[in-house]
Amino acid sequence: MPLDDNHGYRPRDFKQIGSRPLRPDGVDKVTGRARFGADTTAPGMLIAKVLRSPHAHARILGFDTSKAEALEGVKAVVTRDDFPDVDPDAIMTGEEDDELRWVATNVMARDKALYQGHAVAAVAATNARIAKQALGLIEVDYEVLRHVTDVDEAMKPGAPVLHDDMFTSGVEPKPETPSNVASRLEVVHGDVEVGFAEADVVIERDFTTEAVHQGYIEPHACLASYGEDGMAELWCCTQGHFTIRNGCAQILGMDISKLRVTASEIGGGFGGKTRVFIEPVALALARKSGRPVKLVLTREEEFIGTGPTASTSMTVKIGVTKDGRLTAGEALLKYQGGAFPGSPVGSAVMTAFACYNIDNVKTIGYDVVTNRPKAAAYRAPGAPMAAFAVESVIDEIAERIGIDPIALRLMNAAKEGTKAAYGPTFGPIGFVETLEAARDHANYAAPLGANQGRGVASGYWFNWDGETAVGLNVNLDGTVMVAVGTPDIGGSRASMCLMAAEELGIDYDRVCTYVADTGALGFNDVSAGSRVTFACGMATIQAARDVIAEMCGRVAKIWGIPADAVTWEDGCAKPSGANAGDFEPMSLAAIAKIQAETGGPIAGHAEFSAKGVGVSFGTHVVDVEVDPETGRITVLRYLVTQDAGKAIHPSYVEGQFQGGAAQGVGWAINEEYVYGADGRLQNPGFLDYRMPVASDLPMIDTVIVEVPNPGHPYGVRGVGETSIIPPMAAVANAVARATGMRMTSLPISPPKLLAALGAASAKLAAE
Amino acid sequence: MPLDDNHGYRPRDFKQIGSRPLRPDGVDKVTGRARFGADTTAPGMLIAKVLRSPHAHARILGFDTSKAEALEGVKAVVTRDDFPDVDPDAIMTGEEDDELRWVATNVMARDKALYQGHAVAAVAATNARIAKQALGLIEVDYEVLRHVTDVDEAMKPGAPVLHDDMFTSGVEPKPETPSNVASRLEVVHGDVEVGFAEADVVIERDFTTEAVHQGYIEPHACLASYGEDGMAELWCCTQGHFTIRNGCAQILGMDISKLRVTASEIGGGFGGKTRVFIEPVALALARKSGRPVKLVLTREEEFIGTGPTASTSMTVKIGVTKDGRLTAGEALLKYQGGAFPGSPVGSAVMTAFACYNIDNVKTIGYDVVTNRPKAAAYRAPGAPMAAFAVESVIDEIAERIGIDPIALRLMNAAKEGTKAAYGPTFGPIGFVETLEAARDHANYAAPLGANQGRGVASGYWFNWDGETAVGLNVNLDGTVMVAVGTPDIGGSRASMCLMAAEELGIDYDRVCTYVADTGALGFNDVSAGSRVTFACGMATIQAARDVIAEMCGRVAKIWGIPADAVTWEDGCAKPSGANAGDFEPMSLAAIAKIQAETGGPIAGHAEFSAKGVGVSFGTHVVDVEVDPETGRITVLRYLVTQDAGKAIHPSYVEGQFQGGAAQGVGWAINEEYVYGADGRLQNPGFLDYRMPVASDLPMIDTVIVEVPNPGHPYGVRGVGETSIIPPMAAVANAVARATGMRMTSLPISPPKLLAALGAASAKLAAE
Repeated sequence: MPLDDNHGYRPRDFKQIGSRPLRPDGVDKVTGRARFGADTTAPGMLIAKVLRSPHAHARILGFDTSKAEALEGVKAVVTRDDFPDVDPDAIMTGEEDDELRWVATNVMARDKALYQGHAVAAVAATNARIAKQALGLIEVDYEVLRHVTDVDEAMKPGAPVLHDDMFTSGVEPKPETPSNVASRLEVVHGDVEVGFAEADVVIERDFTTEAVHQGYIEPHACLASYGEDGMAELWCCTQGHFTIRNGCAQILGMDISKLRVTASEIGGGFGGKTRVFIEPVALALARKSGRPVKLVLTREEEFIGTGPTASTSMTVKIGVTKDGRLTAGEALLKYQGGAFPGSPVGSAVMTAFACYNIDNVKTIGYDVVTNRPKAAAYRAPGAPMAAFAVESVIDEIAERIGIDPIALRLMNAAKEGTKAAYGPTFGPIGFVETLEAARDHANYAAPLGANQGRGVASGYWFNWDGETAVGLNVNLDGTVMVAVGTPDIGGSRASMCLMAAEELGIDYDRVCTYVADTGALGFNDVSAGSRVTFACGMATIQAARDVIAEMCGRVAKIWGIPADAVTWEDGCAKPSGANAGDFEPMSLAAIAKIQAETGGPIAGHAEFSAKGVGVSFGTHVVDVEVDPETGRITVLRYLVTQDAGKAIHPSYVEGQFQGGAAQGVGWAINEEYVYGADGRLQNPGFLDYRMPVASDLPMIDTVIVEVPNPGHPYGVRGVGETSIIPPMAAVANAVARATGMRMTSLPISPPKLLAALGAASAKLAAE
Repeated sequence: MPLDDNHGYRPRDFKQIGSRPLRPDGVDKVTGRARFGADTTAPGMLIAKVLRSPHAHARILGFDTSKAEALEGVKAVVTRDDFPDVDPDAIMTGEEDDELRWVATNVMARDKALYQGHAVAAVAATNARIAKQALGLIEVDYEVLRHVTDVDEAMKPGAPVLHDDMFTSGVEPKPETPSNVASRLEVVHGDVEVGFAEADVVIERDFTTEAVHQGYIEPHACLASYGEDGMAELWCCTQGHFTIRNGCAQILGMDISKLRVTASEIGGGFGGKTRVFIEPVALALARKSGRPVKLVLTREEEFIGTGPTASTSMTVKIGVTKDGRLTAGEALLKYQGGAFPGSPVGSAVMTAFACYNIDNVKTIGYDVVTNRPKAAAYRAPGAPMAAFAVESVIDEIAERIGIDPIALRLMNAAKEGTKAAYGPTFGPIGFVETLEAARDHANYAAPLGANQGRGVASGYWFNWDGETAVGLNVNLDGTVMVAVGTPDIGGSRASMCLMAAEELGIDYDRVCTYVADTGALGFNDVSAGSRVTFACGMATIQAARDVIAEMCGRVAKIWGIPADAVTWEDGCAKPSGANAGDFEPMSLAAIAKIQAETGGPIAGHAEFSAKGVGVSFGTHVVDVEVDPETGRITVLRYLVTQDAGKAIHPSYVEGQFQGGAAQGVGWAINEEYVYGADGRLQNPGFLDYRMPVASDLPMIDTVIVEVPNPGHPYGVRGVGETSIIPPMAAVANAVARATGMRMTSLPISPPKLLAALGAASAKLAAE
């Protein structure tokens, strides 16, 4: 059933929505029963390993795989020769649409290795030891080329150019020489020159951020099987098995129908499991060897061979009147997204100033390629870096003109009716409410001691809708199953159960939600863009309504009255209206029990491109203490206030708030890709790449703001991404308030902060 | 979408239906890639073994499982105490509905072991050796009881009674003492006394048949996983994972929604994999141990612990005028179906005389319990035995009055308008056509030599409809996937692909059919009763029509014309009608490619209790040679003619004809359960239980008759079962024609035939 016209929000008294039942996947995950990507096996299975370029940039002149192939136990070696050329215009759909040829070239290097870690060959052997040994026997004839890993360096004339056939788009006249700038984006709203002229204070700062990795616990893992008749199967941990299916099939030149993909449980994704990396390689090896092939990445491979986020170089300039009115905002955002076009600078350009009602905005973005792994999505891809820059300048302005940072934001906050610089005019939104909640929270009044400071920052995310298909089936015993096509990355099974139970009027524990494989359901976009609870929830509600209509129709036949004389209430079909007659209500369980006699299986469906997505705002307040002797930042208190529209399962919403904040704190303080002059990553492991652990963080406080999204029947907004947007600026602002030192380069790691503080002290001492 | 009103047959020129494309599962099965029941594993998996009663009938006074539980590596032992009491009125739906309490008691013995092989306990251990060892450590305190395995003996007064609480149903007055006769069935049509009075010749004979096993290549196998939160998964080879799910859940006291069952490929079922045997046991062990449990039966366990078919004792009496008009038919059919009620005698009563237009028919059936394994369905369950008896007498009558056996059948054949004794009045049927095809076939004129004879027999099967749910999804690249819930036991994936391709007007190889798990689709009845190509095919066609309507609607929007001005033809949407306008036709692929922009995923659905099933008739002609020195029967030629309604994929139809005939020949000549006086099976293995192998059979010739079934859009009738109904009588009739000896007891094994021939010779010599 396509999207009907009644999917909009209508206020109601919820019976189950907003409660906190046990999560359906919780016990399995803590007891070890849950089956993750690496937990599937097949008889006769081989183990695969990937050979990766040691060079940041090198032409691949040729291969000699004969020695590897001759090694006993080696069943297949694949290189670029085992992958067909793909349609240059083909797209791999996802949260961002990518040109398929780039995706395919990232999966397996063609003429050049474009970054250290780029896959150049792969082996399938009877065990891991042999596969590893075989990698060492593959001879690759490289011509090492000059490389560039820094975004500013990559934009300079004379920089080594990665792609001879790439010319900057979005500029006039069309360039005649190739460069590393894939595209230039621009958003202009009003006239910034006029705006800056109106300002009493203008602050302009340069910022840099380093690439960080999603750091999911579970590495990429898959098991591929490929029959001689061209039918293939893939089991993998992914945020979107339908997208993985379409990508793999297109990269390997298969009919989409011939590849069936099953999503395992997933040990974190955060955007990093929305793309294909190893899956086409495993399938190619399975195709060549005729055996099932398992491929599981090591942590080092995760760092060098999958998709971290972009690193950036940014300049932000904001003007304000002395009474606190923002008059103009300007941003120059340079994002390197690794070796292929498609950095998330587009989202950055959209979101940078979207929190504020500013008459004059100009944002320019550059999508730049460098000799680094192709960036993947990472939670609100692109937005956190721009917010770090903008919200840092906002805080400095507040400090300069002597206004409380929340008060300044409240004075300029986007509201219903505000036209965002990048286009949309906002409907009902909850940004002001998040600011007020932060201002009114106890944390905001907590006393601060020496070397302590409080930082505030806000964030905006537009959220995504995407294609969605859901089936809902009623069992003989009156229990219900929801079949979804979106892997559960954040508790969506619980939310779907709640929405189905609410709509049907039955108990939560009578509903189970299952993730269907790609053979059983219509296409679903990836679990990303904060879209699942919104779009899949809308589809679940619609499928439930479809089932209710079917049940009412059957009961009407039993009662011998018109279908519209039966209504659904409290989990029962009831006669409705003056002429309906007097009948005992029939419960869902009673109707379910006799379904074979009344027409057969009772099922509901919804397939649509979701519409009505609600945007989301959040405000974070963090208190830090800086150790002046070590530069170590301790997070004392952390508060997230965010508009969820309607929290279906508040514990999961709070978990999303907390998870985003925790990841943002890591990004702010410790996490970074450290490249050597050789273009190689210096810290590809969790010993040297430091993510926050439980002891690094206080309990993160949360306030769920609920301003219903008019585009969703229950008012739901996406909540998964907004929470990672403010933390870096919030921490930097807190550090500035604690030390007087504005840190404009992430991470604010102890050595960097100590050096900055030392330089400042030295400067002070010298003056 | 429920069954629409346009599902009836309409003649058309098929483009793909009736072609013979490659089977989708073929390559996988011959290369070993196909994953059968035992091919799935899970981390931490245990191996289970079942302890089975050595006694045919014994009270279980108690258990001591402590020694087994103490054995290192044993993780769980289950007995009757681990299974809840089930609702005494609950039904396990299937091809025959069974009382759930009997099914549960068959799965695990309660107060008594009712047959040798009855499961009394089971063990899960870290490996098979330990599990086996643990079985030996379980002490069961049995009180051995008198037993009975023969149907006639079981009906006698004084026979040991299996169930103290079972009283014969269907008799008046209701009996006051329990007996082994579960029920008496009666079909009366006309007055047989009048009919026999009209007859010139009346022949009455007694017959017996022994139990045979389906003999599928793949033993029962499953992997069960059961979480501490009550969510469970099961992978198994089965003919119906939805039925298995409902059965297991009800037997274990679970919500149906909490058990997800995935059907593996299946190495044969033939009715024997429509019931639960080991699956609830594996789940109970998984529940108790907290670990995944794999349970695979040995061949010996298949023979003693699953469901063979019934053995029978029958009397048939038929009257005929000397010019060949059948005046009366009477049958007494006593079927023992093992230790619980539910032998297939009901089908026997229905089908026994259904081939013929006889004014006076009386059929009485008895469903009898004995100390044998509970019979399961076996291809046209119940009908072959009755046909053996009836068709043997028909043949003897033809011989006696000197009419060709096909001519006699033609004179009395059921036709459109004939009212069958058991109730229905036939619509268009093809029985006459099968007889004519047999008569006109070269085999029927082939010369016969010494010790050779030609036997003819016919068979009738009513076929089954059942509940069905199908989803059809259109991929981005214009390929199509059909999701079905019926395991593919006989090539149904190919047939569904053909029907979807035909309806959509696209190539066969653009369609793939997948068997969905129980979490993803509405309830589907088992793949049995010859129902799948009929019912699932009807649902596939309807889902395709649903998709066509959706596509036409979208194209109408694109063109800006009314939906009913767009028609579907040759795989394209085209403007239709005078005012539709002039537009280029849009192909399915073109519509598929832009589906995200036109409303989202394109999907079709059908859920219904199928209606309109077509009955099926077949006629077999077999030539045999009997070796008078050894009694060995060699099958020289074999012809099957059968009405398929419409053969979707003729190779599969022929395969069904041939497969049924081959199994029937085994049943006729060699296969039998041999019980000792101790009530134990003497031949539980393929060395001693002789199934036909390739060298035992000639190429089986086939003629597909096509008299369309008016209840199916393409005219399909079920074909899987009818072909096993005539062979036993056909072989016996051929033997009679070759030797003059009418064999009335199956199997006609060499020693039995030799003894009969010897006795006849001795009698002749003595005269």
